[in-house]
Amino acid sequence: MNSNYQNYCAYMRKIADVQFAAGVLNWDQETYMPSKGTNFRAQQLSTLAGIAHELATKEELGTLLNKLSKDTSLTEKEKRNIAQSLKNYNQNKKYTTAFVEELSKTISETFQAWQKAKANNNFKIYAPHLKKLVQLKRKECELLGYTEHPYDALIDQYEPETKTKQLEILFADVKNQLVEFVKQIAEKPQNKDNFMFLNYNKDKQWNFGIDILKQMGYDFEAGRQDISSHPFTTNFSSEDVRVTTRINENDINEMIWSCIHEGGHALYEQGLPASEYGLPSGEYISLGIHESQSRLWENNVGRSLAFWNFNFNKLKEYFPENLNNISSKDFYRAMNIVKPSLIRTSADELTYHFHVLIRFEIEKALIEGKIEVDDLPSYWNTKYKEYLNIDVPSDSQGVLQDVHWSHGSFGYFPTYSLGSFYAAQFFSQAKKEIKNLEQEIEKGNLNPLLNWLRENIHKHGKYYNATQLCEKITGEKLNFKYFMDYAKQKYSDLYNI
Amino acid sequence: MNSNYQNYCAYMRKIADVQFAAGVLNWDQETYMPSKGTNFRAQQLSTLAGIAHELATKEELGTLLNKLSKDTSLTEKEKRNIAQSLKNYNQNKKYTTAFVEELSKTISETFQAWQKAKANNNFKIYAPHLKKLVQLKRKECELLGYTEHPYDALIDQYEPETKTKQLEILFADVKNQLVEFVKQIAEKPQNKDNFMFLNYNKDKQWNFGIDILKQMGYDFEAGRQDISSHPFTTNFSSEDVRVTTRINENDINEMIWSCIHEGGHALYEQGLPASEYGLPSGEYISLGIHESQSRLWENNVGRSLAFWNFNFNKLKEYFPENLNNISSKDFYRAMNIVKPSLIRTSADELTYHFHVLIRFEIEKALIEGKIEVDDLPSYWNTKYKEYLNIDVPSDSQGVLQDVHWSHGSFGYFPTYSLGSFYAAQFFSQAKKEIKNLEQEIEKGNLNPLLNWLRENIHKHGKYYNATQLCEKITGEKLNFKYFMDYAKQKYSDLYNI
Repeated sequence: MNSNYQNYCAYMRKIADVQFAAGVLNWDQETYMPSKGTNFRAQQLSTLAGIAHELATKEELGTLLNKLSKDTSLTEKEKRNIAQSLKNYNQNKKYTTAFVEELSKTISETFQAWQKAKANNNFKIYAPHLKKLVQLKRKECELLGYTEHPYDALIDQYEPETKTKQLEILFADVKNQLVEFVKQIAEKPQNKDNFMFLNYNKDKQWNFGIDILKQMGYDFEAGRQDISSHPFTTNFSSEDVRVTTRINENDINEMIWSCIHEGGHALYEQGLPASEYGLPSGEYISLGIHESQSRLWENNVGRSLAFWNFNFNKLKEYFPENLNNISSKDFYRAMNIVKPSLIRTSADELTYHFHVLIRFEIEKALIEGKIEVDDLPSYWNTKYKEYLNIDVPSDSQGVLQDVHWSHGSFGYFPTYSLGSFYAAQFFSQAKKEIKNLEQEIEKGNLNPLLNWLRENIHKHGKYYNATQLCEKITGEKLNFKYFMDYAKQKYSDLYNI
Repeated sequence: MNSNYQNYCAYMRKIADVQFAAGVLNWDQETYMPSKGTNFRAQQLSTLAGIAHELATKEELGTLLNKLSKDTSLTEKEKRNIAQSLKNYNQNKKYTTAFVEELSKTISETFQAWQKAKANNNFKIYAPHLKKLVQLKRKECELLGYTEHPYDALIDQYEPETKTKQLEILFADVKNQLVEFVKQIAEKPQNKDNFMFLNYNKDKQWNFGIDILKQMGYDFEAGRQDISSHPFTTNFSSEDVRVTTRINENDINEMIWSCIHEGGHALYEQGLPASEYGLPSGEYISLGIHESQSRLWENNVGRSLAFWNFNFNKLKEYFPENLNNISSKDFYRAMNIVKPSLIRTSADELTYHFHVLIRFEIEKALIEGKIEVDDLPSYWNTKYKEYLNIDVPSDSQGVLQDVHWSHGSFGYFPTYSLGSFYAAQFFSQAKKEIKNLEQEIEKGNLNPLLNWLRENIHKHGKYYNATQLCEKITGEKLNFKYFMDYAKQKYSDLYNI
């Protein structure tokens, strides 16, 4: 290995060390930190972020990367790493200190205003701050540059090399095909799910969740599960990947879906090559691909009848008093109720995408300057009526429900839908390539699937971008058809359509 | 506040942020980190240590400190901070990169050799590495400089401004007075403690430990207790100070003494002024003073009859099956058995100091070049016979028992004894100043004592050095007499001497 490349690796690993250290501090903050620890923890995190940013933007790194980018002796993987690191470096260098400081200050103020506005159901508290933030985001697009659409520059931060144009096509399909299909479902009688909301003992729920994680192949020697108020996955190397869950004693759903969802994220991180620590080749591709892993496990596997034909009896052993007269089919029906609702985070796997569609349309229009922040509440409510046939009773449950915009995260929402759509396309391919996949799942054997994901997705790190990966695995670019086929097949059966 | 001083504060806080971040990573490593996390955690910690060291030795800091050290407009506290930071800076600058690298490499090798030597009861595996390390430590003394004795330079790292000469006087007292007194005890019939080793349920032990910490005034909103294989206290600000304990189901002692001991350390850290975060005025004085706080709570309070006259009934409520026929006096006698033994960490509060005395004599002689590493086993065994009247059956239980030397920690051991001696002197003064202290303890009211410690010790940070603090509180320098008086009074009664 040439010495410049070695220096590059060492440098990148140093940055990763600082960022992962911050990750440990964040994990601690969400799980075990005593309440009074808050103030100094915020300062410690800010110092670490500053050090990581300083390292990531030093001239020394730029010189090294530029030199290596002309080095023809590198392997293909090395070249790809250098190209990606150089892209990040150049992007980072585009931010002036003045801009970063203004953005950071505005985000902090907007976040506080959002909290207040949501608590008081008063969009006007939020609006002036959000306006300023949208202005800054528009400025950020110019700063970063784009060829087709300014929103591309924002998407690129979460979903590298994916364009507004592609998303427009996907979300047009959502609007044209999925909205229609859900209307058909809405006309059918609803399935029962009352037994999901009986009293489920917390410790038993916890144990069942651990059983499921083990069955999925989550390595507890390279991770652990804890409780936090919002479930998340975090990692400090691919050999220390942690998940959290939350348990609601009166709703078995929360624990089950957070365990499987976060477990899916965690399997991806545990499957990234540890030898590539700190390098693009050791990193996940994009938020969309990350989400494809959590959604594939949560929806394509976890919400399937095959999965519960194996696991329902185990759950019944924990809770015979609640589930004695319930069959695995009843349970499957209950967990797959489709019903338009107000809140994105608790939506079913179909109407979920209408929530994202609305946010995508709003973000794009805001960045294009076609709507103004003051228009958001009425725009939001009209769209909810149009796509979900639902009346939004208050802004707190409407346009104020999500934290994302107050954090300046524009371009993030679409990756949630991308995740489901990639998952459907990958899973369709997995079923073709893995012998008797459904029967294996029905036997509780999830290894063939995990191995397939490891081999086709995890082990490559960021060598391919999302589109390349999708083409390599499935022979074509992301196509909404796979999700729509999955949805139609599953829900036509569930709702007798 | 002048702007140079503000810059100094900001700079010091940045260093503290990095060091405390490393503290969180260490805490996590000892409590919750999954086993496979080890490798990358070591690398992350090493990166953070490197960044902290780089910051602490930058010319920029030196320039600022030198400027401030001539600034007569500073307050006394500010001047003291600058003086201490400048001293640390100058000390840090004395280390050449070559020396640091050689030391670090040697320590790593010596530690590994020590583990192997101890496991195989073979001092010869350890000896060549320890020889090299002792050579480096002698070199370090020269590098750092000293006026009276080379060992002073090493002591100063743990117990600033305390000299070999003072330790010689103290340990001469140990040898002349305490060794003699323990011989008298050895001639007396031994007290019973068999009920300490019955089966004590772990959860109940845990709950009792929490009760005790609360009674001591430990703030659980600014800290927490967890389990680790070796109990320790760590902090990431004075508003996040954590303790760990370990629980042995067949020995109630381990949990009780680790809870009270670590609780004492933690109360000191929680009592340091949060506003002085990162500055000497927000730091503990020395390891000896730190240990004085843990020992005062553990021994002067925790091993007193007054404390158990209040707490024994509570313990009995948890474990009636084990303690029904036992009185608080029986319990008090059992926890204060004095009996020479092989292992320092499990020694009683009197013979403990013989273990330290031996290590002090060895370290001093090694640094002076009066004995060689090869002489250690026989020297060790001779001393154990002389002071403890005990035959050392193997080097694993003898000269190889402690990890300290393999870490290069020479000058550390004496601080353990200093802690007990300071504790005795402080506690004697507290009894004079706090009305009915013993009766308050007997009522379970530990607040007056904590307030006294807060006021006299904790709140001052590092404004005074250990000797100044001791003189300020007790009117005289550290004097072994107070410990000896305490020992004689307590144990003459316990052993009818």
